[in-house]
Amino acid sequence: MNDQLSITFAALADPTRRAILSRLTTGEASVTELAEPFDMSLPAVTKHLKVLQRAGLISQGREAQWRPCKLEAKPMREAAAWMEPYRRHWEQRIDRLDHFLRETAHKGARRLRTRK
Amino acid sequence: MNDQLSITFAALADPTRRAILSRLTTGEASVTELAEPFDMSLPAVTKHLKVLQRAGLISQGREAQWRPCKLEAKPMREAAAWMEPYRRHWEQRIDRLDHFLRETAHKGARRLRTRK
Repeated sequence: MNDQLSITFAALADPTRRAILSRLTTGEASVTELAEPFDMSLPAVTKHLKVLQRAGLISQGREAQWRPCKLEAKPMREAAAWMEPYRRHWEQRIDRLDHFLRETAHKGARRLRTRK
Repeated sequence: MNDQLSITFAALADPTRRAILSRLTTGEASVTELAEPFDMSLPAVTKHLKVLQRAGLISQGREAQWRPCKLEAKPMREAAAWMEPYRRHWEQRIDRLDHFLRETAHKGARRLRTRK
């Protein structure tokens, strides 16, 4: 499990880590700020941040005392790109279902007209 | 780690499982067909299929002897939906970069015209 996609998906397979990423979409935040909403010790949160950092999903600034964490787009963009064929797959299925329903409705309407 | 999203992402965090899912976007397949491209024992492949099945990403038919596996769209759709805000986040960043580059090019062109 050393490929980037596997590392990204493994990092996303945790609700706390996903909540941290969600928070970071609104802007940079310090470790203390990120820890605030969780009923968790600072070391526990730091551990999650390390997983996210190793996956390249976030980076931590070196400047200033508060060392802000911020989102890095690349791994998430690659994960989303990997999902694209599935999106097409289910959209096609929805299209086929839509087509089937329209056809059925159309036939039903025709049958009603013939009966009149 | 009992929430559906964590289970989905954990199931996706493996290259063999992702390859199996990719194969299934082209249509249903038996376990033997799915095992074929991998240098893996049938029990090893079956183990991966069980993880995918438990995550709800695939289902296995009960009819016929070959019990075809097929994709189930829902968990992947939910995972993709979870990623949407990040897509918007990086698209906004790209837009800002694009705007900055256009502005810079515009200013550069104006400076050149003033010099003439």
